[in-house]
Amino acid sequence: MNVIEVCLTPELIHQYTLQGKIAVVVDIFRATSCMVTGMAHGVKSIHPVASVEECLALGQQGMVTAGERGGIKVDGFTIGNSPFEYMQEEFKGQSIAVSTTNGTKTILASTDADEILIGAFLNLQALVDYITTQRKDVVVHCAGWKGTVNIEDTLFAGALASALADSHTLSGDAALLAFELYEANQSDLLKIARASSHAQRLSGFGVEKDIEFCMDQSLYTAIPTYNNGCLKVIS
Amino acid sequence: MNVIEVCLTPELIHQYTLQGKIAVVVDIFRATSCMVTGMAHGVKSIHPVASVEECLALGQQGMVTAGERGGIKVDGFTIGNSPFEYMQEEFKGQSIAVSTTNGTKTILASTDADEILIGAFLNLQALVDYITTQRKDVVVHCAGWKGTVNIEDTLFAGALASALADSHTLSGDAALLAFELYEANQSDLLKIARASSHAQRLSGFGVEKDIEFCMDQSLYTAIPTYNNGCLKVIS
Repeated sequence: MNVIEVCLTPELIHQYTLQGKIAVVVDIFRATSCMVTGMAHGVKSIHPVASVEECLALGQQGMVTAGERGGIKVDGFTIGNSPFEYMQEEFKGQSIAVSTTNGTKTILASTDADEILIGAFLNLQALVDYITTQRKDVVVHCAGWKGTVNIEDTLFAGALASALADSHTLSGDAALLAFELYEANQSDLLKIARASSHAQRLSGFGVEKDIEFCMDQSLYTAIPTYNNGCLKVIS
Repeated sequence: MNVIEVCLTPELIHQYTLQGKIAVVVDIFRATSCMVTGMAHGVKSIHPVASVEECLALGQQGMVTAGERGGIKVDGFTIGNSPFEYMQEEFKGQSIAVSTTNGTKTILASTDADEILIGAFLNLQALVDYITTQRKDVVVHCAGWKGTVNIEDTLFAGALASALADSHTLSGDAALLAFELYEANQSDLLKIARASSHAQRLSGFGVEKDIEFCMDQSLYTAIPTYNNGCLKVIS
């Protein structure tokens, strides 16, 4: 059996060894849900960058620019951070440069791993299928919110751990915590996701339909993976 | 209504404002359970120090020395880190200097709070009664294990949040997470505590009866509080 660990926030990632493992980066509200959605709708590549300036520079080179700060679209970017914005027909075959508060930083802090996969409820089953074939240990790296633990990413980590129970044992109390949270709430994930502080913050921006969409399970089979500065779908 | 927040490990305490609040420090296996037990059995004061050297120096001044490193009693200390060792008749009226891996450091990292209380399942109801009279916000500061999140301290945080539901609302996702963990497991806390990695580690040292004892609820009414370098019982 392989093991699955859970890192509840990027501020604790130094406690984990990523070498030789698969890192699954998750930022349910909304960065990784957007990435999966975009790739499922034909976006060619996504380039996560830390700063607004880097993002705008890639925009000058012809990329679509996307992202938020504090939940709000950045001035001058083509789109914000809603999965529905990533579904546009005109983005098919295009590259998107993206900078978000938490998700991008979490990807960039995972580069010690053998492989970085982008996880969301939207591609949960595809992740499970792929990971099962790889026979490697997994670290779920939750983006959280500005360094703090959040409910929705922890819930996803628990869902993945639960779905991988046949091939991966829980390692560490954070994984057990995530697993327990998921098991106790699996009959109504949306209810507890709505109670999360992130959902409460976002509800001020009128993105209730984003929240619901991001909690949909296994709508897509696309698994974005990070290599040489950009995300492409695993072929 | 006041609020209750939960800090899952000392490595995240910088995300919290402690000023004006009550910090409840918890290290269920076993530092804070020992402190509560000792004080309930008549120990006059407990002096938490960070290093073995400081502890031995206080021993030279006539204090009982106590503590562990990696779960094992330190060479030259009078006692280790089992609550049963703190019940000795001869310690009545004595002072104990203590240094433990996680608990001591968590106390010393909580000094911005208005008041530092020592929490354990052993004095849960007394804590609830006292906090209810104070009308202050609460931060539960979990000691964890070498900086990582642990199940038993998170479970205690959830139990306290649950018991304070009439006077304190949950603030932040870590509090919600702790609350959910407790609610889902309250019918058999010992079961999930035994599944924790800390209990698994300790079981190698033959301390199963310590684990059970530390999960006993509201056996004592003593609430140790930290002031000027030492813990005394709230009178």
